[in-house]
Amino acid sequence: MNQRIGAFAKRFEDITGSAIREIFKVAAQPNMISFAGGNPASEALPDAQCAELAREVLLSDGKRILQYGATEGYPPFAESLAEYLREHLSLEVGQGSLLPVTGGTQGMRLLCDALLDPGDTVLVECPTFLGNMQVLRLGQVKLVPVESDGDGLIPEALEEAARAHHPKMLYIIPTFQNPSGATLSLERRKAVAQLAEKYGLWVAEDDPYRDLRYTGEPLPTIKSFDRAGHVVYMGSFSKTISPGLRVGYLLGDAQLMRKCAIGKQSSDLHTPTLNQALVDQYLRRGLLGPHIQEILPGYARKMNQMLGELERFPQGVRFTRPQGGLFLFVELPEGISVTQAFQEAIRRGVAYVPGTHFYPEGGHHNTLRLNFSNSTPEQITRGMGILRELFGEILHR
Amino acid sequence: MNQRIGAFAKRFEDITGSAIREIFKVAAQPNMISFAGGNPASEALPDAQCAELAREVLLSDGKRILQYGATEGYPPFAESLAEYLREHLSLEVGQGSLLPVTGGTQGMRLLCDALLDPGDTVLVECPTFLGNMQVLRLGQVKLVPVESDGDGLIPEALEEAARAHHPKMLYIIPTFQNPSGATLSLERRKAVAQLAEKYGLWVAEDDPYRDLRYTGEPLPTIKSFDRAGHVVYMGSFSKTISPGLRVGYLLGDAQLMRKCAIGKQSSDLHTPTLNQALVDQYLRRGLLGPHIQEILPGYARKMNQMLGELERFPQGVRFTRPQGGLFLFVELPEGISVTQAFQEAIRRGVAYVPGTHFYPEGGHHNTLRLNFSNSTPEQITRGMGILRELFGEILHR
Repeated sequence: MNQRIGAFAKRFEDITGSAIREIFKVAAQPNMISFAGGNPASEALPDAQCAELAREVLLSDGKRILQYGATEGYPPFAESLAEYLREHLSLEVGQGSLLPVTGGTQGMRLLCDALLDPGDTVLVECPTFLGNMQVLRLGQVKLVPVESDGDGLIPEALEEAARAHHPKMLYIIPTFQNPSGATLSLERRKAVAQLAEKYGLWVAEDDPYRDLRYTGEPLPTIKSFDRAGHVVYMGSFSKTISPGLRVGYLLGDAQLMRKCAIGKQSSDLHTPTLNQALVDQYLRRGLLGPHIQEILPGYARKMNQMLGELERFPQGVRFTRPQGGLFLFVELPEGISVTQAFQEAIRRGVAYVPGTHFYPEGGHHNTLRLNFSNSTPEQITRGMGILRELFGEILHR
Repeated sequence: MNQRIGAFAKRFEDITGSAIREIFKVAAQPNMISFAGGNPASEALPDAQCAELAREVLLSDGKRILQYGATEGYPPFAESLAEYLREHLSLEVGQGSLLPVTGGTQGMRLLCDALLDPGDTVLVECPTFLGNMQVLRLGQVKLVPVESDGDGLIPEALEEAARAHHPKMLYIIPTFQNPSGATLSLERRKAVAQLAEKYGLWVAEDDPYRDLRYTGEPLPTIKSFDRAGHVVYMGSFSKTISPGLRVGYLLGDAQLMRKCAIGKQSSDLHTPTLNQALVDQYLRRGLLGPHIQEILPGYARKMNQMLGELERFPQGVRFTRPQGGLFLFVELPEGISVTQAFQEAIRRGVAYVPGTHFYPEGGHHNTLRLNFSNSTPEQITRGMGILRELFGEILHR
């Protein structure tokens, strides 16, 4: 590249991304047992069904599906999605409050673009989803971690942070949190909605794992307690139908959604229509519920198998017991670094994500995230055996 | 919305978008003859073919297509696209230089995000594509128009602007420009590449209409004269296969493409894979060339019909005679406002886009853009008749 060309934009200066990209690159090597990703199980992806549905929608409405579409979404999908949210989540869906997006990541990005100026403060759980932390960092905002426990974000810590930092937004994953697996309790859901109103805070409620519940009863969304329009509900079909289709949605204040739609015009114009039409069929024909019921038992078995393996790990290894989702979070004693041990794990054929990447301020090298959905039972047995041995060695060094 | 919630982000303050959104909204009314959009003809959209291809790719590679994919693209598509660019456009495609994107708009956005800081200066043609002007405005950059004539951007004007404004980037549509229809001459293509090198300027070469050529010989891309990696070639399959699929690509300096890929991770993670797989089939099976040959005659007929109608317009009405693309640009005498006349045109049942929206600094109310591809021959006859009468009236007021 010629020296005279102008430099890249400053917003990329704090974006490394490379550590995680390297992890996923090695995790994708052949014969690697990967507990690193957040991928649905291959057997849970409805390829044959999508093949028939894709053909059918293109034959029945192909001229509209292949033409330019509205930024606000493919009308049949906007309709069936609103209906689904009313019935399935008891959410109110007002005029202009729903925006289909190209995967949950785009939803987060549009929200950040619409709401945040460089230098603004955003509260995040600690730990939290690294992908959306990168979206926030690209927006050059200040991230302030708020303490969580086994029941999710601690409202008293949220109130303290709201007072101390005058944040513009809270980013929260209330159900089967990534990476902690924690689910925000009912009382805390109400408290978050109330504190958002009290402190004039936007809440980005990221809820992609909600339908992957293996035990316990579903809880209402934070959004359902939102009286003043402060909460934006971020949904996705990536974990229930297919991540490759990239279909999600935002539900929030209509004025804010209009800003997001204007941002989307300058992002990808509209979410690809074929993809919206496919998800529309799952909702319209009532295929989504049965499909989820079909995949849940396999996911539950894998999670329980991995938990069973963790129980055989050396003393001092602690781990979460989520009621659903895709991840277990593991903690070794302080002073032990699984960030350092990662290279050795890779050499032995197993990948995970060191927990440090999920902490806004780093550290926490004694933690790691494990995904169980994308491995076979055999891989879980073998891979967890390798980790047990490795962690035993580093614990006794 | 509660008063206490923080305001929206400042980057939206200069974005109106509403005038154009209103135009497209009225243009979409039933029974409206719309020359306003840039839509491919309905009969040019290969719905039956896509239906079979979608079914086939999902049956043969559905597990991969429905799973998370790499930001850098679906490997078979990345491969066939590189091959296509080498063969069809004689472009060099080096390692890491190609990035599939979710439509041309995303390509532009990623490029702007990677290159431009607020306050940077970007040179644009005058007039230029309003959609990408909005992308630039969202980036809070300063737009400086550079004069064009019937052979496209004037190199002397470019050099003067480069000296005077120290711009970071030039945005240019060299072939069948939107809205002017002009095609940059061979000599000027070389000159643009040379000036980019001389002044350390990035060039965003937006070339979505290239394959819609009805007369004359194809010209090499500006990118093909780029010795120092200053030019990013922006391609799209929206005008040749389907805009609803949202598949395009960037070809440029590998270091810059890596920045764009990191930006894309925080935009939509990856372009939906089914859509990449469909376009891959068009390239891999050699279906694209024959499909384009099939649609060209109809487009040429429509353009010539609209040109024939324009010849019967009152004296003082001038218009472009492009060799391809989707648009004619019409100029009435100074002092006449077709921006004002728009509401009356709508009342009479015809929509167009007032040219003022394509000028970075507004004005030029005596100009308009007409699209011919998305109307039937009957609609062209009737709609142009209505405009001829209307313009006759306002010319003789």
